[in-house]
This record gives sequence, structure tokens and C-alpha cells, in this order.
Amino acid sequence: MTKKPILTTSISPSLLHLYDLSSSIVVIIDVFRATSTIASALYNGAKAVIPVDSVPKAIDISKNIGGIAAGERDGMIAEGLQHGNSPLEYSREFIENKTLVLTTTNGTRLLQMALDKNADTIIAGSFPNISAVCDFLVKEKKNVVLGCAGWKDRFNLEDTLFAGGVIHRIQSEFTVHCDSSVMAEAMYENHKKDLIKFAPKLTHYHRLVERFGLIEDIKYCLTDDVANVLPLYKEGKLIVG
Amino acid sequence: MTKKPILTTSISPSLLHLYDLSSSIVVIIDVFRATSTIASALYNGAKAVIPVDSVPKAIDISKNIGGIAAGERDGMIAEGLQHGNSPLEYSREFIENKTLVLTTTNGTRLLQMALDKNADTIIAGSFPNISAVCDFLVKEKKNVVLGCAGWKDRFNLEDTLFAGGVIHRIQSEFTVHCDSSVMAEAMYENHKKDLIKFAPKLTHYHRLVERFGLIEDIKYCLTDDVANVLPLYKEGKLIVG
Repeated sequence: MTKKPILTTSISPSLLHLYDLSSSIVVIIDVFRATSTIASALYNGAKAVIPVDSVPKAIDISKNIGGIAAGERDGMIAEGLQHGNSPLEYSREFIENKTLVLTTTNGTRLLQMALDKNADTIIAGSFPNISAVCDFLVKEKKNVVLGCAGWKDRFNLEDTLFAGGVIHRIQSEFTVHCDSSVMAEAMYENHKKDLIKFAPKLTHYHRLVERFGLIEDIKYCLTDDVANVLPLYKEGKLIVG
Repeated sequence: MTKKPILTTSISPSLLHLYDLSSSIVVIIDVFRATSTIASALYNGAKAVIPVDSVPKAIDISKNIGGIAAGERDGMIAEGLQHGNSPLEYSREFIENKTLVLTTTNGTRLLQMALDKNADTIIAGSFPNISAVCDFLVKEKKNVVLGCAGWKDRFNLEDTLFAGGVIHRIQSEFTVHCDSSVMAEAMYENHKKDLIKFAPKLTHYHRLVERFGLIEDIKYCLTDDVANVLPLYKEGKLIVG
């Protein structure tokens, strides 16, 4: 019997140091909304998404390359930018053949952490591209770390539910036994029939819907395969893999 | 309407820094097995349990006060000690009127972290004393942080299940909205009817049962109220509160 690769789940960036990323595919998960937005932009024809860690850097790089600077802080469009972190902003009409330079509170920060820890491969995962993510992981047959971005290092359920969704689909191809993965899969199993109905239980739902009225964002970000491409990190950019 | 105190759950010591402990009762949770052992020893008449962070310290202090030095590393009785971290070791015949000086991998370390962060009050929680813990928290009407000890900073399910059990019993008396607490309560709700049947899903179960044959420990540690006292930290010692 061939030994199966190991799949583990890191439920907060504060726990990422516990995992060996150098021999793993790391899936960056920031369901609300960075990785959903990255999938959406690439699905709609963006040439690339460049993740950066600050607003000034986003502005500088976008000026140099003629790209779109965008970003979010605390759920709002970041000061100094015209575009934010909503997947619905990045329609084909707007983003096709352009490069998006994106800075966000949690997702792009986690991606930087994975780079610093020499991850073998980095991809971005969200419900809008869950099938593309699962297909890639099964095909590659490498160890996997599902990296939840959380909210400022706090555990959040939406990223964990996505991790659970991935585990639910591909667990037969992997060795899965960490308690985080068992929990993530159980939470997904409980709520997979209606994630949108479960959403009001999430802290982040209240931030996005009650403060900013972003219910359509929530619905999009919890829908499978509406932007089913694989964002693969390569030489500073996320491109379609 | 009186404002209810806030209850949050820290699912790993690596996340404890996110919470304000100075105005909170911190419940140290290390189900397998430190906090179950602490409850058991106090229930069976130990004068006190002194938690310490190293084996030499446990030996020194126990010599000075004529106490019992005990401790565990990686699931086994720590080198240099005669007594370990099994609640079943601390029968009334053995421990009554004695002081237990205890060092463990996760639980006593978390307790030290809570002290360093100036926790208002520290108590120890486990299924064997879940009612005493809940009664105390309801009576005190202060903010609560349920602190899961995990396993070397990794998330574990047994500590989270206990947090969920506490939330399940007392949530009407508190404001509970962090995603960790929602998850913990949901996992408990799923498995409360038969925690022992669920146990083989836990990483720690395999460590304790397959490596060390400790199935009776597991059963004890997952049984409600078999050592129903409140271990309260006071001046370096856990005593019956």
C-alpha cells in the first residue's frame, strides 16, 4: 500500500509555526474575503494578483506596472485606495487583462508568513474555487497544510468550514488525523446543507453584514465553484495554475 | 437589563495573548489529564496541589514541605519522579492530607501563562468537576476565559469539548459570541451523549491508550462530576475553593 500524504489544518496564523511547510502545499484560506476575491479576479481574467502587506506598497507597485491597487483594513476599503476586498467588485469588464495589487488584514499576511516559512507550494482556497483546490491537491499527492487566516489571529469558523469542506471531499486520498481537521470536517458536515443559513452565527458575519451591509458578498463567498480557478503563487504573483 | 459578563474560549495557549485575563476568571482546561488529576487529588482530600514548571522544582518543593512530587512528560511519568499524571493514582488512601507538587507538559504551563498575564482568578476545570466549575462561574458573574491547554500548543478536541460542555450549561448567563465558543458548544452538543464513544477520534486517545494502555484514565477523565470540587488558585497553590 502506498503511504498517503498527510493533511493537517492550521486554525490560526498563530499556530502556523507548528507545521512543517517546506514539504507541503499550503492552502491560504481567507473566506471573507481575500481568497474569494483572488479567485474571483483571476476567474474574470485578471492577469495576476500581487499580494502585498501595506497600502503604500500596493499604490507603488500598481503605479509601476499600471495595475489596480486595492485593499481592506478592518473590513473597509483601506484609506488611500479606491478598491476594496469585495469579490463582486472584480467583474470581467473591470479586471480582465489587468493586474490586481491587493493588501488585506489577514489573508495576504498569512501568505507572507507561509513564504517566510519556505512553503513548498502556495495556493489560495475559498468556496468559489473549492473544486479546483481539491483537484490540485489530489493530483499533486504532497503533504497539505490548510492554513486558516482567521481574524487578527483569532480562530474563525468560515475559514475552518472551508478547510472542513476540502477534507470532506478528499480525505480518502490523505492521512488525516489531527484534531483540528477532525473538528473542521465535523463542523462542515453539520452545516454543509446550508452554509448561508448558518452564517449569522459567525462573528465575521456581523462585522460584514450589520456594519457594512455586505450580505451579497457573504452569499458569494459561501457558494461553491462560482470562480473555479486555481490561484497558484509564483514569483511574487498569484496566477491561474 | 443587566449587562451579562462575556465568556470567550482560547483554544490553544498560543492564542491566550489575544484575551484580557486581568478582568477575567480563567479556567485552566487540560482534560487528559492534569486538571482531571488536580480535581481528583483535591476531591480525595489532598491539602493542596502546587503546580510547578519543572521536575527539579517539583522534587525540591516536595522535599521541603514533605509533599508528593509528581509529573508527566509526553504522557509518561517524568524521569526522576515516582508518581505521574493519572487521576486514578490519587486515591483517598494515598493522597489525603498530603500536598501534591505537580508538573505537566501542558496544563501547569498554561496556568503559569495565566499568572504571567495577571489573571483575576484562576480555577482548574475538567469533566470530573464540571458542575463545581459551572456553579462558580455563574455565582461570580465575572468575565470568563476558558483556556484550553491543548498539546504543545496544538488544538485538541478534548479540552474544547469540555469548554463546550461548560458553555452548554451556562451560556444563558453570559454573552457568548466568539467563533471558538460557538464551535466548542457545537462539538459538545454533537457528542455529549457518548463522549467515550467519540474518544477514539482524538489524537490524544491514541497516545494514551495505544501507547500506554490508559483506557481507564480516559473514561474517568470524560465522566462528569466524579471529583466535584473547585480547584482555586491562591498564593501558589490550588486548594478547594
